[in-house]
Amino acid sequence: MIEEYINDNKDRFLEELYGLLRIPSISTESVHKPDMYRAAGYWKELLLNAGADKAEVFETAGNPVTWGEKIIDPSKPTVLVYGHMDVMPAEPLDQWKSPPFEPEIRDGRIWARGANDDKGQSMMHVKAFELMVRTGTLSCNVRFMIEGEEEIGSPNLGPWCREHQDILKADVILISDTTMISADIPSITTGLRGLTYWEVTITGPARDLHSGIYGGSVANPIIVLSRMIAGMIDEDGKITIPGFYDDVMEVSSKERRLLSQTPFDENAYKEAIGVKELSGEKKFIVPERTTIRPSFDVCGIWGGYTGEGSKTVLPSQVHAKISTRLVPNQDFRKITRLFTDHFERIAPKTVKVKVADLHGGQSYVCPIDLPAYQAAEKAYEDVYGRRPVPVRSGGSIPIIPIFEEILGIKSILMGFGLNSDAIHSPNENFSLDQFYKGISTIVRFYNYFAES
Amino acid sequence: MIEEYINDNKDRFLEELYGLLRIPSISTESVHKPDMYRAAGYWKELLLNAGADKAEVFETAGNPVTWGEKIIDPSKPTVLVYGHMDVMPAEPLDQWKSPPFEPEIRDGRIWARGANDDKGQSMMHVKAFELMVRTGTLSCNVRFMIEGEEEIGSPNLGPWCREHQDILKADVILISDTTMISADIPSITTGLRGLTYWEVTITGPARDLHSGIYGGSVANPIIVLSRMIAGMIDEDGKITIPGFYDDVMEVSSKERRLLSQTPFDENAYKEAIGVKELSGEKKFIVPERTTIRPSFDVCGIWGGYTGEGSKTVLPSQVHAKISTRLVPNQDFRKITRLFTDHFERIAPKTVKVKVADLHGGQSYVCPIDLPAYQAAEKAYEDVYGRRPVPVRSGGSIPIIPIFEEILGIKSILMGFGLNSDAIHSPNENFSLDQFYKGISTIVRFYNYFAES
Repeated sequence: MIEEYINDNKDRFLEELYGLLRIPSISTESVHKPDMYRAAGYWKELLLNAGADKAEVFETAGNPVTWGEKIIDPSKPTVLVYGHMDVMPAEPLDQWKSPPFEPEIRDGRIWARGANDDKGQSMMHVKAFELMVRTGTLSCNVRFMIEGEEEIGSPNLGPWCREHQDILKADVILISDTTMISADIPSITTGLRGLTYWEVTITGPARDLHSGIYGGSVANPIIVLSRMIAGMIDEDGKITIPGFYDDVMEVSSKERRLLSQTPFDENAYKEAIGVKELSGEKKFIVPERTTIRPSFDVCGIWGGYTGEGSKTVLPSQVHAKISTRLVPNQDFRKITRLFTDHFERIAPKTVKVKVADLHGGQSYVCPIDLPAYQAAEKAYEDVYGRRPVPVRSGGSIPIIPIFEEILGIKSILMGFGLNSDAIHSPNENFSLDQFYKGISTIVRFYNYFAES
Repeated sequence: MIEEYINDNKDRFLEELYGLLRIPSISTESVHKPDMYRAAGYWKELLLNAGADKAEVFETAGNPVTWGEKIIDPSKPTVLVYGHMDVMPAEPLDQWKSPPFEPEIRDGRIWARGANDDKGQSMMHVKAFELMVRTGTLSCNVRFMIEGEEEIGSPNLGPWCREHQDILKADVILISDTTMISADIPSITTGLRGLTYWEVTITGPARDLHSGIYGGSVANPIIVLSRMIAGMIDEDGKITIPGFYDDVMEVSSKERRLLSQTPFDENAYKEAIGVKELSGEKKFIVPERTTIRPSFDVCGIWGGYTGEGSKTVLPSQVHAKISTRLVPNQDFRKITRLFTDHFERIAPKTVKVKVADLHGGQSYVCPIDLPAYQAAEKAYEDVYGRRPVPVRSGGSIPIIPIFEEILGIKSILMGFGLNSDAIHSPNENFSLDQFYKGISTIVRFYNYFAES
């Protein structure tokens, strides 16, 4: 019956998803503010049309939140679905094979910014909800909370949750914003890394100088920043910020053995991203480096003359966006203090340094003995024919530890993305097969969870 | 009589300069190609109106050259005036107090891109020429050659000179494209540094990656480039490219003693550019670091996400514009080979490296016993009341050594700019007083040179 309903409605499901994908709801760019409201209104209609008793667009200090619910029986378990309507910027635009906000089907995949992250994945939940309502099989109370600031670290969702605890009561939070190992090997994400994100500015001379007249006597801020960045990671791939590893939870050798059994093909991995050699902490295998170990990246850098041809300047300023991924029990606020102190301390007197803290979040771990986790396990097994593997993800969803802190509810990360989906990159896509299987798996989750 | 003519015509001189300054003839940006032709046509009219027998706009493989001449008597000495009509880009635009291409007088100065470099300074020559023609005092034959590619390294002027040697015959080349020590202390530039300019590209993964999913296992190209740049200069301020200093001409201790007597106020220097501490080769004093010693600068850098807010990417690529200044007898072609080899050799296997050679030029030295140099000395002394100091500049005018090679003519660098003119920077300006004194000095040069 589940597959029949999906099959009868699959084209309409896609049309509804396309409507959402066509809205360029980019939360990192303030010019797209009106698009956030269009996306929020679209979500309200989606919820009401699917069968919600109520749905509402709530204002926050930032972008709006769309909330809705259907309470069938207060004595039954309640599932709170979380998703996000905002997406990453689509740049570099010239690398897209089809325009990022004009969804298109090619090779059994939907191509668009947000096709997976998280418009495609959150759409599965509202369609699973519709299926259960229309077929009279809804076995739990359901609440939805779709935010518009996930890609900028959810700065306003925590306060909003605190204010609206009464309409967010639930037994579990269900989220699809992660991946599976592969289309054949289902997995459930049981850990997420924390995150920091800073923008640093190095100022040398008060204005851009002529590099002939001054070159050789005045420190070049790009060279100064290069040195400061170069020293942040040592020969062994370790981050050199003093105290950075102090709170890192050492993973037991038993768990490391389990991790090393997760299928991992290094050659396929390198080929998929186009590099000849990998990098990172020498004492850890590659899947560990991106999950149980923290990392340090420069996400962007700019300064001086960046136009066509040549301009011989000794630039005044250079900027960089710097981010770390953190693991239990690193605290992102403490790491920000450690980095800021260190960065200011290592700067030479020839320059001025500014560190702006853009956002951050804690890491998260979900125990695999939770009833909701076990319901999810059974649901995947029904659809994919094998028990999902519990895995840790290298990514971050900073709002999840906040949900636990404010609402006291654990989250289950039922992801259906694949590594080839190119989220945050040009040519983001989502497999149609995963989209429909995801809906089916979610419906089954409700059935098992109601029984648990 | 000289001062009287200048005084009677000073407002018209400014109006004619404004017309030139209003043309955004930026040679580094191909969108300004039509402006180069407007500037060339404007120069042709300037020359004809000033009294040239002939003037013509010549095509080259790049931007046009305006040429003109007045031959009064083939037995008299001939002066070939060189200047350039192109300017640097005006970015960052928000730092200009008045728009860069709308000249304005404030505080006794002309404010505009090119006010000094080189529209203001080359305009002095055509006005000096006009003065001598109109007052019947022209004592030498005069030729003009005004190019449109100086700021991109004059790639087509050498070939053009080779082709037009017959109309460029002269005894000396006269150029105003440099500075004086200060408004009270005249100086003549007797040395220029050579130059290289490269654009490097470092490519890591084939696309921008999610920094959570991949961070810790894939080399970040910005960090890789930072390390490569950081290692280019050692603790003592020396450039580490193997062989870089091999051909550097050691300046005699006698000349270094003379150099150390040139007035230099380190505190005023630091204050003027807004830095607390200077940098560079420890074994040399500051005025040496920018003149008799080579230097290494990163003029610009860009890569990854550089927009508003945060985007958690592990970027695919990063680019940098890198330039060196060279001294006699470093050859810019050899330095480019040394750099390219070194840069490719130090790159780790995790990335791909590309070095593009954008342009380069040799250094130049002018002997102070040349008759033309001595004529210039007397001319300055008449106007400024003291003998000009011979100084070496840290800047580069790559076409000057090419003139010597192709035409066999030495150049005299009669500069009237001041260090506060902010050439290549926002708020470029040129002192009105220097502009009028420059015209007067140039007229006197012709008189002394005709007698020599």
